Amino acid sequence: MTVRVFGIAEGVREMERIAIALLGCGRIGRMHARVLARHPGARLAAVYDVLPKAAAETAGELGVPAAASAEAVLADPGIRAVLIASPTPTHVDLIVAAARAGKAILCEKPIALDMERVRACEQAIAGLTPTIMLGFNRRFDPSFAAVRQRAQAGEIGRVEQVVITSRDPEPPPADYAAASGGIFRDMTIHDFDMARSLLGDIVEVQTMGACLIDPAIGAAGDYDSVMVLLRARSGALAHINNSRRSAYGYDQRLEMFGAKGMLVAENRRATTVRAATASATECADPVLHFFIERYAEAYATEVGHFIDCLQSGATPAVGFTDGVEALRLADAAEESARTGKAVRLG
Amino acid sequence: MTVRVFGIAEGVREMERIAIALLGCGRIGRMHARVLARHPGARLAAVYDVLPKAAAETAGELGVPAAASAEAVLADPGIRAVLIASPTPTHVDLIVAAARAGKAILCEKPIALDMERVRACEQAIAGLTPTIMLGFNRRFDPSFAAVRQRAQAGEIGRVEQVVITSRDPEPPPADYAAASGGIFRDMTIHDFDMARSLLGDIVEVQTMGACLIDPAIGAAGDYDSVMVLLRARSGALAHINNSRRSAYGYDQRLEMFGAKGMLVAENRRATTVRAATASATECADPVLHFFIERYAEAYATEVGHFIDCLQSGATPAVGFTDGVEALRLADAAEESARTGKAVRLG
Amino acid sequence: MTVRVFGIAEGVREMERIAIALLGCGRIGRMHARVLARHPGARLAAVYDVLPKAAAETAGELGVPAAASAEAVLADPGIRAVLIASPTPTHVDLIVAAARAGKAILCEKPIALDMERVRACEQAIAGLTPTIMLGFNRRFDPSFAAVRQRAQAGEIGRVEQVVITSRDPEPPPADYAAASGGIFRDMTIHDFDMARSLLGDIVEVQTMGACLIDPAIGAAGDYDSVMVLLRARSGALAHINNSRRSAYGYDQRLEMFGAKGMLVAENRRATTVRAATASATECADPVLHFFIERYAEAYATEVGHFIDCLQSGATPAVGFTDGVEALRLADAAEESARTGKAVRLG
Amino acid sequence: MTVRVFGIAEGVREMERIAIALLGCGRIGRMHARVLARHPGARLAAVYDVLPKAAAETAGELGVPAAASAEAVLADPGIRAVLIASPTPTHVDLIVAAARAGKAILCEKPIALDMERVRACEQAIAGLTPTIMLGFNRRFDPSFAAVRQRAQAGEIGRVEQVVITSRDPEPPPADYAAASGGIFRDMTIHDFDMARSLLGDIVEVQTMGACLIDPAIGAAGDYDSVMVLLRARSGALAHINNSRRSAYGYDQRLEMFGAKGMLVAENRRATTVRAATASATECADPVLHFFIERYAEAYATEVGHFIDCLQSGATPAVGFTDGVEALRLADAAEESARTGKAVRLG
Repeated sequence: MTVRVFGIAEGVREMERIAIALLGCGRIGRMHARVLARHPGARLAAVYDVLPKAAAETAGELGVPAAASAEAVLADPGIRAVLIASPTPTHVDLIVAAARAGKAILCEKPIALDMERVRACEQAIAGLTPTIMLGFNRRFDPSFAAVRQRAQAGEIGRVEQVVITSRDPEPPPADYAAASGGIFRDMTIHDFDMARSLLGDIVEVQTMGACLIDPAIGAAGDYDSVMVLLRARSGALAHINNSRRSAYGYDQRLEMFGAKGMLVAENRRATTVRAATASATECADPVLHFFIERYAEAYATEVGHFIDCLQSGATPAVGFTDGVEALRLADAAEESARTGKAVRLG
Repeated sequence: MTVRVFGIAEGVREMERIAIALLGCGRIGRMHARVLARHPGARLAAVYDVLPKAAAETAGELGVPAAASAEAVLADPGIRAVLIASPTPTHVDLIVAAARAGKAILCEKPIALDMERVRACEQAIAGLTPTIMLGFNRRFDPSFAAVRQRAQAGEIGRVEQVVITSRDPEPPPADYAAASGGIFRDMTIHDFDMARSLLGDIVEVQTMGACLIDPAIGAAGDYDSVMVLLRARSGALAHINNSRRSAYGYDQRLEMFGAKGMLVAENRRATTVRAATASATECADPVLHFFIERYAEAYATEVGHFIDCLQSGATPAVGFTDGVEALRLADAAEESARTGKAVRLG
Repeated sequence: MTVRVFGIAEGVREMERIAIALLGCGRIGRMHARVLARHPGARLAAVYDVLPKAAAETAGELGVPAAASAEAVLADPGIRAVLIASPTPTHVDLIVAAARAGKAILCEKPIALDMERVRACEQAIAGLTPTIMLGFNRRFDPSFAAVRQRAQAGEIGRVEQVVITSRDPEPPPADYAAASGGIFRDMTIHDFDMARSLLGDIVEVQTMGACLIDPAIGAAGDYDSVMVLLRARSGALAHINNSRRSAYGYDQRLEMFGAKGMLVAENRRATTVRAATASATECADPVLHFFIERYAEAYATEVGHFIDCLQSGATPAVGFTDGVEALRLADAAEESARTGKAVRLG
Repeated sequence: MTVRVFGIAEGVREMERIAIALLGCGRIGRMHARVLARHPGARLAAVYDVLPKAAAETAGELGVPAAASAEAVLADPGIRAVLIASPTPTHVDLIVAAARAGKAILCEKPIALDMERVRACEQAIAGLTPTIMLGFNRRFDPSFAAVRQRAQAGEIGRVEQVVITSRDPEPPPADYAAASGGIFRDMTIHDFDMARSLLGDIVEVQTMGACLIDPAIGAAGDYDSVMVLLRARSGALAHINNSRRSAYGYDQRLEMFGAKGMLVAENRRATTVRAATASATECADPVLHFFIERYAEAYATEVGHFIDCLQSGATPAVGFTDGVEALRLADAAEESARTGKAVRLG
């Protein structure tokens, strides 16, 4: 897409637009594509998916080129950055290839499901790419971000406790669960990253897991309901609760409690309507159904932050190390759930 | 801006995009321009403002042509519709000219500040334009729309009372107030339209006005604080309260009360954060500051509805007559405030 | 009931208890009797009702004497005060008789349904009783009182608007409506008193009435749904809305809006429970059903204030004049509803 | 206090009143005394405290006899029940003595701070007393009780998760902490009982403790901030968080999450007032300060339940075993906090 602009501002604006390609046109990839297509600082230069039909649909919808291969994208010197939204098992190879091609990278979480692969990836890309950012979208949710900023500004004094509620609207198919690396690596990993972003280093993990929703998940060796305790190096304690099913929608809440007060981020709804009838009052809508709706603003802000970093040369707020650390916590959580013992981390 | 698309879908999508020009690049015009530029069914074909600088800025920001005159826009056979966002005194002339040019029209409210001009406009355009829509943006607010739809679906039984709260964050400059036609025609007119959309025909109006905020407004013969009672033909009663200043932001609420319950649309905020300290708990953000933020979704939905109507040939949900009727109510409100008597309408 | 106390404090406490008799053992009288029986500063000295059975039941429940007649109560020199909770038509005679007997008086509202009788009562008791208090219970509601006190302390700056919502859970029998003096004198009178307590003198009244709920109420010449506008001498505007039926319970809310912010008193519920299901979230209980439950604390505080005044010699916060003024507003409201004209008061 | 009643109902009512003596006139004892003095089914027959002044004050306030010794109370054949509100170390001796005297017993929690003493007490009173009830007041909170009843009625389907928030307004003196048996036995014990009442038997306990508020508490070997995970025999998971200090008041919340939805009991406040200013909106009061205010209704209902059981012969909803089980959980919690291992219970 060529941007035709008029008058004095023309050259300036054109130079600012950063050419970014999308790798992976599934549900989340397509959502990212729309964000990139609208962003005034970006130019969606190409989209690619292993399924040509998926790439063609996204390309057609947004009027951008569909690339023939990931290699073609990475070989294009006009493309400065890639957004990797392909399935998790492809992440490491794409990260390494993109880094070798000198592209900046925004990669959906997780890097990989096992630490060995993550460490190998880390070594392979050392020094190769100027910018790598992990897609922990929730850090960019305006409400969660406001809680963190206000707490860090001292509004509630020393932070003593954090409670994170994170419940999916419905369980994944049992075969997804099997391939996902387990609930701690697939779902809680977001909450581990949130805990780290709020509290810094985590030094102790304790968990309990249960299979209460879908026996097939249990049969696959996974849990569908988990509770976590964390201790931060700061001394603060944190609790995470996860469920694979929430009848009232995607339950995403956060509570920070400190010496001087408490900050809470509540759920979001499509409207502000409240209904009163003979049986109940102040009834609100169900909460927004799932991540695409719930974190629409967060995804847009995340991509905006990546573009800002590319324009300014700044380091993204969430990097490769954050992906490593979240996975370490997921591994520890899994171990604690299996052994019933607290796992201490460096 | 030419949309370059790829593959099979190319021709199809291009044909769907409706060429729309913007007349008036002030604050609200620029906001509309951004909405049009993003809408997949529209093509912002040109922007015009009596101040060339304003037009150039909007054109430059969005990469669209700035037109040399309104006449040039209306003479362009490639342009199917105009969005009129210029100052109120220009609305009638632009509506008439656009209608004569066979353009579809989306015009910001109000049509004009006096009924004679509105009636003259109505006659001048009779039969000329296929589609004319008035910009009563609040009808398209998702929360207000949900309240109306749920009430009309019978959720609260027969509607008996409506309470509309509508308070601006800060008073306009005194000279604006003087030129605005007075608070009833400038501000309450939105609430009159809302009352009509919720209750149908209004048959009686009673008002009280006061100047409590800025003596200059009173000196200009206007009020800055008003309260209204309405009686609908259905029998239902409605109350509107307006203030030109609200310390906590743009207060926009709606309550519908009926035989079986109540539906309320609450204010909107930037985040869902709630803070607790030693002095207070559950403290939320101030409400969104003013119409651009508060009604961002409504403006986008409004423009989307206009485009949908153009694509499908449907009649817009809010037309010229709605502009006439809201002004009739504003005139009656002014009369009641001056005389202390209820004004009955056909 | 003799209070047997022990130790040093004995004599002191006994002398503090003020002997009060209850006249009228209906629903509200019995509620007052229970409050008096529990109050450490009062002694419920006798109860009387024109129906001996009603008096006997209340006497039996609380272990107090049932008096044979109102005259016997007033002739008892041991009784210092009477609480009049008998039907409205008896109020004036009992007030006059009690005042002549030198008793302090706490009388349920209203004094009477017509101004002539009220003025006659006023003259008849001039100078006779040290203390007369009217039972405008809502002034003593902790939430409404907090709003008033905080507004008067300047928290929201100059008060510009007040909105009072007051809806009964269910309409009275049609014959009650007929004898009640009409909705303005029977129901809105509470809201008129509230408006006066919040804003001081009211100088202008405008109303609209409708019969939307029970045709029998309309046939009796009354309204079941009314909306009111008031202008205070301070310049502030106020709105009252009333309905004789509210599906979700006794809707009692208050909003004060000023130059620096807003104070709102919300409804009360039996529990703080919020429920979330697939169809709705944050669903609260219906609001407390009616005045006995909703204003339980207010009634107790009201009686406590009366006792405090008797002990300290202070003048009650709500006196005979307040009853007169509320009735004047009700009369003006009725006139405005009939004529469609604003009624201006002194 | 002899109740003098009149008329037919006299004898009946007198017989219904159950003579109860209070042992312990500290803060919580005096609160119970007031509840007993007001209850229509009870007669506060005597009060005793090891400090004669404390007993005299309560006796004087309520007009009841102050007993010379606990032995005198227990020897009085007219007294049917005792309410034990003396310091924890005296509970076992008083329970045993009262049981031997054949009195019914309502004892404040905990029975004792170590399990050996509790077991000895259990054996000593086996078969001796018809009725023994433990003072887990929170079970009688109307909101918590409603959540439990609605969940048990199936409103949210199978219960999968429980989250209990319980934070005191301010830490106790360090010497209190030392003598209290530690936070798990002194404070969390209430939440353990709540978890049991909601979920039934608990089979696994994991905890983390920290000292974040008062170093003196840490120096005394205790924690001031704890987080707990529980697994119920039903499979459900539960989380408890405790803090010895909450800037915004006594934070007491409960969340039950199940297959079909969620039930939450929110905090309570003195008024329903919400304030909006330029910096924040919907600001509510701080939550009620501490247990006397927060659980006023719960304490009254608890005593009422005890009296109902005495009148009807029913077994109290919370008995000696509940005290034993809550202490077992506290012991397990302490062990887990010290060892970092999950503790499994029968």
